[in-house]
Amino acid sequence: MTTRVLTGITPSGTPHLGNYVGAIRPAIAASRAQGIESFFFLADLHSLIKAQEPARTQRSTLEIAASWLACGLDPEQVWFYRQSDIPETNELMWFLTVVASKGILNRAHAYKAAIDKNEAEGLDPDAGVSAGLFMYPVLMAADILIFKANRVPVGRDQIQHIEMARDFGQRFNHVYGKEYFPLPEVVIDEQVATLAGLDGRKMSKSYSNTIPLFAPRETLKKLVFSILTDSRAPGEPKDTEGSALFQMYQAFATPEQTAGFAKAFAEGISWGDAKQQLFERIDAELSPLRERYEALMAEPEKIEALLRRRGQQLREQYAVPLLKELRHAVGLRDLADVPRAAAAELARSAPPVFKQYREKDGRFYFKLTDGEGTLLVQSTGFDSPRDAGQLIAVLKQAEQGDALQSDLFTLEAEVAAVLAALATLRDAG
Amino acid sequence: MTTRVLTGITPSGTPHLGNYVGAIRPAIAASRAQGIESFFFLADLHSLIKAQEPARTQRSTLEIAASWLACGLDPEQVWFYRQSDIPETNELMWFLTVVASKGILNRAHAYKAAIDKNEAEGLDPDAGVSAGLFMYPVLMAADILIFKANRVPVGRDQIQHIEMARDFGQRFNHVYGKEYFPLPEVVIDEQVATLAGLDGRKMSKSYSNTIPLFAPRETLKKLVFSILTDSRAPGEPKDTEGSALFQMYQAFATPEQTAGFAKAFAEGISWGDAKQQLFERIDAELSPLRERYEALMAEPEKIEALLRRRGQQLREQYAVPLLKELRHAVGLRDLADVPRAAAAELARSAPPVFKQYREKDGRFYFKLTDGEGTLLVQSTGFDSPRDAGQLIAVLKQAEQGDALQSDLFTLEAEVAAVLAALATLRDAG
Repeated sequence: MTTRVLTGITPSGTPHLGNYVGAIRPAIAASRAQGIESFFFLADLHSLIKAQEPARTQRSTLEIAASWLACGLDPEQVWFYRQSDIPETNELMWFLTVVASKGILNRAHAYKAAIDKNEAEGLDPDAGVSAGLFMYPVLMAADILIFKANRVPVGRDQIQHIEMARDFGQRFNHVYGKEYFPLPEVVIDEQVATLAGLDGRKMSKSYSNTIPLFAPRETLKKLVFSILTDSRAPGEPKDTEGSALFQMYQAFATPEQTAGFAKAFAEGISWGDAKQQLFERIDAELSPLRERYEALMAEPEKIEALLRRRGQQLREQYAVPLLKELRHAVGLRDLADVPRAAAAELARSAPPVFKQYREKDGRFYFKLTDGEGTLLVQSTGFDSPRDAGQLIAVLKQAEQGDALQSDLFTLEAEVAAVLAALATLRDAG
Repeated sequence: MTTRVLTGITPSGTPHLGNYVGAIRPAIAASRAQGIESFFFLADLHSLIKAQEPARTQRSTLEIAASWLACGLDPEQVWFYRQSDIPETNELMWFLTVVASKGILNRAHAYKAAIDKNEAEGLDPDAGVSAGLFMYPVLMAADILIFKANRVPVGRDQIQHIEMARDFGQRFNHVYGKEYFPLPEVVIDEQVATLAGLDGRKMSKSYSNTIPLFAPRETLKKLVFSILTDSRAPGEPKDTEGSALFQMYQAFATPEQTAGFAKAFAEGISWGDAKQQLFERIDAELSPLRERYEALMAEPEKIEALLRRRGQQLREQYAVPLLKELRHAVGLRDLADVPRAAAAELARSAPPVFKQYREKDGRFYFKLTDGEGTLLVQSTGFDSPRDAGQLIAVLKQAEQGDALQSDLFTLEAEVAAVLAALATLRDAG
C-alpha cells in the first residue's frame, strides 16, 4: 500500500528564497518519490484565524498556488487542493470535537503562548484570543484524518499538533469501536535548509531581509548585490564560513560548482564578481520558474479550475465515502435501517446478557448485565428455573418503563439504560 | 416579511406527558400562527456531545421525529429537518469560531457547571470535559444563523446561548462589514406549563415519575390510577389546590370541563372516579396521537424520506446560497475574480488614501493612511508639490518590499501592510 504524505501550505503572500530553499523545493522533490501518495493543501480555513482581510486571503491563495505550481509541483501526480473545497473536513471536525478532551487543547503551544503573553501584560488570560486559535489543532487533525494520512512532515513547532491528531483519531477509534483512522506519524526533517537573508540573519519576512522568489531579473540582481559582505578587497582571500553569499550560492549549486566557488573565494575573488556569479546561478534556476509564475498569474481561472477539479475528485474518491462511514459510526443513520444497524454494533461489542443461576438457598435467580458485566437487573429467588425463564421472556418484551415495575426483580440502573439494553437484545435476536 | 422562528429538539428518547404539555403541544400550536416561518430541527449533532451510543442516537432520532409528527407538526407547513442533514452548518461554525472570543465561551453556564463540579471534587477543572461541551454554543449559533432566524423560543437556561449567537453574528457582521445576519431574539415563555408526575413532583425522567406519551391505553390507565392522592374518602370534599390529579386534568381539558371537575372535587368525588375521568380525558386527546405514532414508527423509511427531502430543500433554498455569500465574504473566493472582489470590498469600506499637504516649513509632504486613518507611509519634505506627486505615482506601482526602500519616505507600518494598501488602491483604480 502506498504511504500517504500530507503537507499543509499557509497561504500568506508571495514566498521568498528562504521559503523556496527550506520548504517548497524539498517538498516537491519528496513528492516525486515512489510509493507515495502526496497531498498538498492550501490551508485557507486556517488562514482565517489570523487574516480577516478577504481580498488578501484571496490574493495570497492565488499567489501561493501559482508559486507551488511554478516551482514544479505536478498537480496531476499529487493531490493539490484548497482546504475549503473539502467541506467534509468541517463535518469531521465536529465528530473530533466531541471526542477531544478540552484539557489537551489548553496545553497547545500556540494557545499557551497567547495566554502567557496576556498574563505577562496583566490582562485576562484569554483577552483577544479567538475560539479559532483555541480550536486550530482540531481542524488540523480533521485535515490529516479526512485523508487518512500516514505521514505529516512538519517543523518542530508542529509536532504537538500531530500528536493531538493522533490522540483525537485514537479516541474516535476507541469510542466507536473500530480502526476508522490510521494514526499519522510526524516526520521531522532535522536538516531543514535555512537561508541567510540580505543582512546575514536568517531570511525572514519579519526581518525585512528577504529576496522575493519571483522578483524580476533586475530586482533580483539589485538585491543580490545588496547582500552584506565584509570589507576585504579584491585579491584578498575570503571566508566561506559564515558568508551569507557563499551559503546562498551553495543552496543553488551542484557540489562541483560549490567547490569551484570556494576555490574562487580562497583565490581572492572580488565581492562584485562573487555577487555576479551568485546572481547568475540563482537566476539560472529561477528564471524558468519566474516565467511559469507570471504565466500562471496571468490566467488565474486555470488555477481556479484546477483546484476545483482536484478538490472534487478528492471528495468523490475519499472524503464523501469516509464521511458516509463516519456518520453511520456515530449514529447519524438512515432511520429505516434500525435493526441492521443495531446488529452491526452488536457484532463488534459484547451485547447485554441474561444469566440464570442457582444460589446456595436452593432457589433460582437471574440477572441482566450489560456487555461490560455491569449489573442492570437482579431478580428475587424462584422455586423453579422455568418461572425465572418465563419472567425473562416477558422482560425481554419491555419497551416502556412501567413494564419494569415489579416485585420480582429490582433495577440496578436507570430505567432508560435497562430499556436500551433490552432493545439491543431484541434488535440482535 | 415573515418572522422566522427556530426550535431545536434534542433527540433523547420517547417523550412523556410533561414534554407534551410543556413543549411539544404549545410549539406546534405556535407554528400554525400567521406570518411565521417555522424551523424545527432534530439536534442530532448536539446529541453526540452526551450520547456516544450510535444505535441509541439513531433510535432516539426516529422516536422523536415520529412523536412530533404524531402530535400534529405539519412537515409541509413548517421546516422539519435533521441538523446533520445541513452540512453547511458545520462550515458556518468555523467562520463563527474564528470571530468568536474564547473568553465568552469560558463563561457559558453548562461549561461553568462542569468545571465547578470538578473543582468542588478537587479535580482538574477540565477533567472529563470535551471540546464538544465547550464549543456547543458556537454550533448552536450556527444552527440559528444559517437560517437567519429572528426568534428562538427557549427555556431560561438557554438565554445565554442566544446572547452568544447574537454576539457571534454581530462580530461576523462587523468584521466583514455587512449585515449578513439578523440578530436573533430570545423568546421566553414565562407561562411554560409544567405537569406534576405520578408522585406529585414535576414530571421528569430523572424522578422516574413519568407517564410515557404513547403508552398503550391499558398502561396509561394503570399509571393514571397510580397517581398519588391524599386519603380522603368518597363523599369528602377534595382540594384542587396542589392536586397533581386536578392539575393534569386541567392540562387536557377545556375551561368548562375543568370547572365541572372542580365542582366534582368540592362535592366529594371519589379518587377512583376522579382518576377514571382523568384517564378518559387524557386518552381522548392522546389515542389518535398514539395511533399515528404507531403507524409512523411502523414505516421509518417514510420519516427518513421526509427528513431528507426537507433538508435538501432547505439547503437549496437557504443554506447553500448563504454559504456561497459567506465564503465570498471571508475571502474564500474564485481566484479568477480578483479585481471585482477587491472593488466590491472598497465599495463598502473606506480605501487607503494618499494625502498631499504643506507644512509650516514651506515644504510639500505626503502621507499614506489606511481607511481608518492609520499612518502607513510618511514622506520627507519636497521643494515642489510636483516632486511629491511624482513619487506618489511611483509608489503606487510598488509590488515588492524592495520598492519601498527609500530615503524620501519612511514606513510607519509593516511592509506587507503598506503593499496591501497599495494593491487595494490599484485594484480600485
